[in-house]
Amino acid sequence: MAQFVNAKDDLVKEAIDGLLACSGGALARIDGYPHIKVVYRADWDRTKVALISGGGSGHEPAHAGFVGPGMLTAAVCGEVFASPSVEAVLAGILAVTGEAGCLLIVKNYTGDRLNFGLAAERARALGRKVEMVVVDDDIALPDLPQPRGVAGTLFVHKIAGAMAENGAPLVEVTAAARRVIANVASIGKSLDTCTIPGSPKENRIPAGKAELGLGIHGEPGVEQVDFSGAAEAMELVLDKLRPHVGDGPCVALVNNLGSTTPLEMSVLSHALTELGTATHVIGPAPMMTSLDMHGFSVSVLDVNEDEMAALAAPVPMAAWPGITKIGPVKVTPLPDGLTPIEPIPSENTRTRATIAHVADLLMSAEGALNELDAKSGDGDTGSTLATAARALKGSLDRMPLADLTQLFPALGNELSQTMGGSSGVILAIYFNAAGDACAGGAPVEKALREGLQRVSEVGGAQVGDRTMIDALAPALDALGQGLQAAAEAARAGADRTASIHTAKAGRAAYVPSENLKGHNDPGAEAVALVFEGLAKSLEG
Amino acid sequence: MAQFVNAKDDLVKEAIDGLLACSGGALARIDGYPHIKVVYRADWDRTKVALISGGGSGHEPAHAGFVGPGMLTAAVCGEVFASPSVEAVLAGILAVTGEAGCLLIVKNYTGDRLNFGLAAERARALGRKVEMVVVDDDIALPDLPQPRGVAGTLFVHKIAGAMAENGAPLVEVTAAARRVIANVASIGKSLDTCTIPGSPKENRIPAGKAELGLGIHGEPGVEQVDFSGAAEAMELVLDKLRPHVGDGPCVALVNNLGSTTPLEMSVLSHALTELGTATHVIGPAPMMTSLDMHGFSVSVLDVNEDEMAALAAPVPMAAWPGITKIGPVKVTPLPDGLTPIEPIPSENTRTRATIAHVADLLMSAEGALNELDAKSGDGDTGSTLATAARALKGSLDRMPLADLTQLFPALGNELSQTMGGSSGVILAIYFNAAGDACAGGAPVEKALREGLQRVSEVGGAQVGDRTMIDALAPALDALGQGLQAAAEAARAGADRTASIHTAKAGRAAYVPSENLKGHNDPGAEAVALVFEGLAKSLEG
Repeated sequence: MAQFVNAKDDLVKEAIDGLLACSGGALARIDGYPHIKVVYRADWDRTKVALISGGGSGHEPAHAGFVGPGMLTAAVCGEVFASPSVEAVLAGILAVTGEAGCLLIVKNYTGDRLNFGLAAERARALGRKVEMVVVDDDIALPDLPQPRGVAGTLFVHKIAGAMAENGAPLVEVTAAARRVIANVASIGKSLDTCTIPGSPKENRIPAGKAELGLGIHGEPGVEQVDFSGAAEAMELVLDKLRPHVGDGPCVALVNNLGSTTPLEMSVLSHALTELGTATHVIGPAPMMTSLDMHGFSVSVLDVNEDEMAALAAPVPMAAWPGITKIGPVKVTPLPDGLTPIEPIPSENTRTRATIAHVADLLMSAEGALNELDAKSGDGDTGSTLATAARALKGSLDRMPLADLTQLFPALGNELSQTMGGSSGVILAIYFNAAGDACAGGAPVEKALREGLQRVSEVGGAQVGDRTMIDALAPALDALGQGLQAAAEAARAGADRTASIHTAKAGRAAYVPSENLKGHNDPGAEAVALVFEGLAKSLEG
Repeated sequence: MAQFVNAKDDLVKEAIDGLLACSGGALARIDGYPHIKVVYRADWDRTKVALISGGGSGHEPAHAGFVGPGMLTAAVCGEVFASPSVEAVLAGILAVTGEAGCLLIVKNYTGDRLNFGLAAERARALGRKVEMVVVDDDIALPDLPQPRGVAGTLFVHKIAGAMAENGAPLVEVTAAARRVIANVASIGKSLDTCTIPGSPKENRIPAGKAELGLGIHGEPGVEQVDFSGAAEAMELVLDKLRPHVGDGPCVALVNNLGSTTPLEMSVLSHALTELGTATHVIGPAPMMTSLDMHGFSVSVLDVNEDEMAALAAPVPMAAWPGITKIGPVKVTPLPDGLTPIEPIPSENTRTRATIAHVADLLMSAEGALNELDAKSGDGDTGSTLATAARALKGSLDRMPLADLTQLFPALGNELSQTMGGSSGVILAIYFNAAGDACAGGAPVEKALREGLQRVSEVGGAQVGDRTMIDALAPALDALGQGLQAAAEAARAGADRTASIHTAKAGRAAYVPSENLKGHNDPGAEAVALVFEGLAKSLEG
């Protein structure tokens, strides 16, 4: 599977340099490429206890993304899924450790324990005060003597980090880290394995199954279980974690293992909050990933007041999502005004006659407009307009014909309900905007022009884009000089559309230009026919 | 492809409720499920200009994840990739709009324009002050009259949001939004399509190809281009964007379209910073995703001072990654102390004889120990130890034999280099820690016990775990009473390992327990043989 990488050997180095270049000067690294890849706080002055973590890469943002005030002082990065060397860890220790000493936070993998362990010895031999803790939060195999270190490590980073930032001595920071490690429990679940750069993807998990209790290096889960949905997946995970949860405040760290979408993570969080195991949550967010694994993990920690305060202390690193109290979903009532007020019918014989006449004109043009539309579209413009016209005619007794301020929005609502689709909404916008302008005191012509202006804004079409606007805009501009002038302007505008071969809006934008040549746009034609019909009836 | 969802109809509702339950009370929603899904700021008092965005779901964290102080007031959420209804948008407007009015920020898709547009008209008819802007930042098709709205929308959210938060009037907020829209340009690139929940995944992009200029709804890209790596992919994207970049400060928003790993995003960021097009960066982070699309997009905006300040204003939403100035990678020199100081050779005939004797004992036990290891492991314990013993014997002339403080770490370094693997590192830790203790004034027996203690801590093995510790620990405890006592204790400890059927550490932890029955652990046996041999030579 292709990935956005360059040469595999440069992958981790480039990723680190990308992180640093985008850190706004907050991060620095030691000059030890390719073997020594140590990221540390650029503002570090060695006056406080240093916190150093690291391990194989492929778990980003862990650990380099959590280097900064209030969390890690340095991250020692190995190649993807490979422990950094003793020399790299030692370089990290020597670079950041002052009189206050340092704490190494190591995930429980043999390579990491040994390389960090030996580096610690060598640093001690050089006179540095070094403590080391090993995080083993994975509860996938309850009997395993060496449980893996997974996302629960973040609790150690944050709690020990807040203490160190506040100036606590090494012995206290170490004791706090050990307390967290003794209490934290994690387990992961995944629908797919991860893709190691340069290696083919293993297809281990069959359809309908999920792996429970997997590690963060693509190693198989403890068991393959049936998968029937997010809620059940979260329930199974929480069932495993519940024995580790007491009665007090419990923080759940909800970790995206890689390629689970934010939408899925929110659905999983919803299941978590419904099940009520935790009182607080960190995430959901990618914190300790396993490359692109489509899965999640939950880590739980019963916390005391000090730990809660440490978790809540703000840090500037974007990768840390913060902690929030899980609460009920706040729901407020629907606002008033959603249902259009049914207008009170009123009479105006001239308006009634005009609307009926327009409707008749559209109904009689049904066939011709369909034929025209067939040349450039799907051939239903005539039918759509005729259907709307019939409905409009049938609605006249319900219409507030005596009051344009009310009539315009009422027409708009009627059309949007009977026409449906984009055309209905566009006409609704048109008449609602016109009504709005009327209510603001505008005369009819101006109100209709404002309606058109709003349709242009919303629909994005202008004169020249081969839409009904090409006829309607000149017609409305000319309306002040009478219906005859408007009809002539509409006709000229509609006929001009035959020479617009590139539609810029509406459905015709997707039609090859040769299909458009020589045919009027059916919407513009409909407008012209209506104005012509109205003008003719006035003459007659 | 399976996903962490439940019933498809509940997907967006559950995701929203998950977001709200984990918002720490910062977010509320309107009681309008299933059709009206509006998320808004729980602390909103309607005194300032409200900013409302939204559209189809599947782009999380956009838009609900950006609701909060300094960005959006409300997000109106449709189903996945489907515009919310007029009623839903209207409900959002009515819920949050006070005297100061509101600005609708709409991505340029017909459905969104129409539904937001009509809702705006209806809200105006109800007396609300409503402005609407349409974001069309996609430059995939330079000639398209209706470019799509994609990740550049975030610039509008942030800049207009900061102004509204500062109390700017609607006319100014709207003008600022329009300026951003006029200048922002975006383009995306992807290696794979997205998976729409409930639909099969389209396999549109062949191996070796990438799509350039794709939308955020799974629609095909403008072209399929050869894909040869991250650097070239970013270069192609920046080539398209460069015509939109001037000479002043330019901010690049680097967006993860879904399932690109943080490692890949950092490699892409590295390429971006190397190419020098932008002066500042937002991200990399998932901001406007397209479900699980394996791709990225870059949006660029030339900013003035006010816009830069607005982008830099801190907001509490975890989804907003902040803005940083792109800078050179800070590199600091390697610290001193990484290379072990070559010890000055010195002589002590008794120490020399003891080490040579131990080496001889191990060499002569090679066959027996291999045989024992073959029963529970890979049969090489004897050879590994014999190789190390030979190297040790050969190194005696280089050793600081007269000074235990120096000799112990020198032995450790020699062994870690000649044995390799875990055993070498473990012995290096052992002897380094012993040397450290010696340097601190501890007598030899105590120093050796401290070494063992450190190995236990680092390796995680205790007495009873069926390792060499089962012989070494009792031997060192008895050493104060003489070598004979130590030899007896080592032998008893080694023999006890034959009855330990469940190894808890080391390689034997992975061996079925029936294979372990009745055989001594080869490491423990080696320790016993060495102590027995040393005791015997003293007698003789």
